[in-house]
Amino acid sequence: MPYVNIRIAGSLTREQKQKIAEEVTDTLERIANKPRSYTVISFDEMPYENWAFAGELLDNN
Amino acid sequence: MPYVNIRIAGSLTREQKQKIAEEVTDTLERIANKPRSYTVISFDEMPYENWAFAGELLDNN
Amino acid sequence: MPYVNIRIAGSLTREQKQKIAEEVTDTLERIANKPRSYTVISFDEMPYENWAFAGELLDNN
Amino acid sequence: MPYVNIRIAGSLTREQKQKIAEEVTDTLERIANKPRSYTVISFDEMPYENWAFAGELLDNN
Amino acid sequence: MPYVNIRIAGSLTREQKQKIAEEVTDTLERIANKPRSYTVISFDEMPYENWAFAGELLDNN
Amino acid sequence: MPYVNIRIAGSLTREQKQKIAEEVTDTLERIANKPRSYTVISFDEMPYENWAFAGELLDNN
Repeated sequence: MPYVNIRIAGSLTREQKQKIAEEVTDTLERIANKPRSYTVISFDEMPYENWAFAGELLDNN
Repeated sequence: MPYVNIRIAGSLTREQKQKIAEEVTDTLERIANKPRSYTVISFDEMPYENWAFAGELLDNN
Repeated sequence: MPYVNIRIAGSLTREQKQKIAEEVTDTLERIANKPRSYTVISFDEMPYENWAFAGELLDNN
Repeated sequence: MPYVNIRIAGSLTREQKQKIAEEVTDTLERIANKPRSYTVISFDEMPYENWAFAGELLDNN
Repeated sequence: MPYVNIRIAGSLTREQKQKIAEEVTDTLERIANKPRSYTVISFDEMPYENWAFAGELLDNN
Repeated sequence: MPYVNIRIAGSLTREQKQKIAEEVTDTLERIANKPRSYTVISFDEMPYENWAFAGELLDNN
């Protein structure tokens, strides 16, 4: 029952999400023996301003 | 101090959120002895396109 | 595809988890029209010392 | 590699996010010896209607 | 700054975690143009008893 | 109703958790006008092996 939450700065196209979902599901099947039909993935697309690294918001960079 | 995060595909009406919050808070009080005033719930309403199951985005289905 | 994460201070018996899972799944089916077979729930049982409320660790109280 | 997720009801200005990021990063460096360059922070700004406390949505209050 | 949280029922060997981390980091680089050095991954290994699907704890199955 | 989840590699002493909780709660009060009594914090202390950065598990370093 893997649940994978992918949080990124910015947005992804539908096509990118579909391809990432396929690959991550495949990785968990091949490496961890988790059947495809058990894997749930969610994407959180967040503004750069809502991320900080080393104390600086990402939209500073 | 239960914290419950409910993530769904699509959206909920305000009325649905209120009813779900009541019932989940009540469940935790009756079953787990957590006082009502300790339970915090958050809802994440996410596009179908941001969920994948078995390697396919939910808006495929 | 609801994903519900229930985080609590302390632990739950297996029976409490089973009952909570049933009730929350049922709530989401009745109120939000989410089919039973779409709901995934995870429980995080955490030490009281790993929670703080109003700036005080819960094991202070 | 601390990852800090700050979820709030309502929104924050960019300036508030920057100041919070600085202070939390500094706190983890001073108290927990986590180098600044290891700390990642994300902010989730959520509608009041998407939070419940004690079984009531926050926008009730 | 992708942050990926992988939550599974049961445990993984160190080797499985390393391989999954490599592949997921690579997927995000190839598909979403996220530089390797921006990707942070965390694994939560949880008892089967702490997961429910369709209202039943996973250790029922 | 801020909810702050602090996830770290390794562990913290009880004293470190108490001090971090105080400072983060204070930061949110001063900067974001969130009353002390609204802030809930949880700590996840995770093995270094359960974190990856740039495709390498943290216990490699």
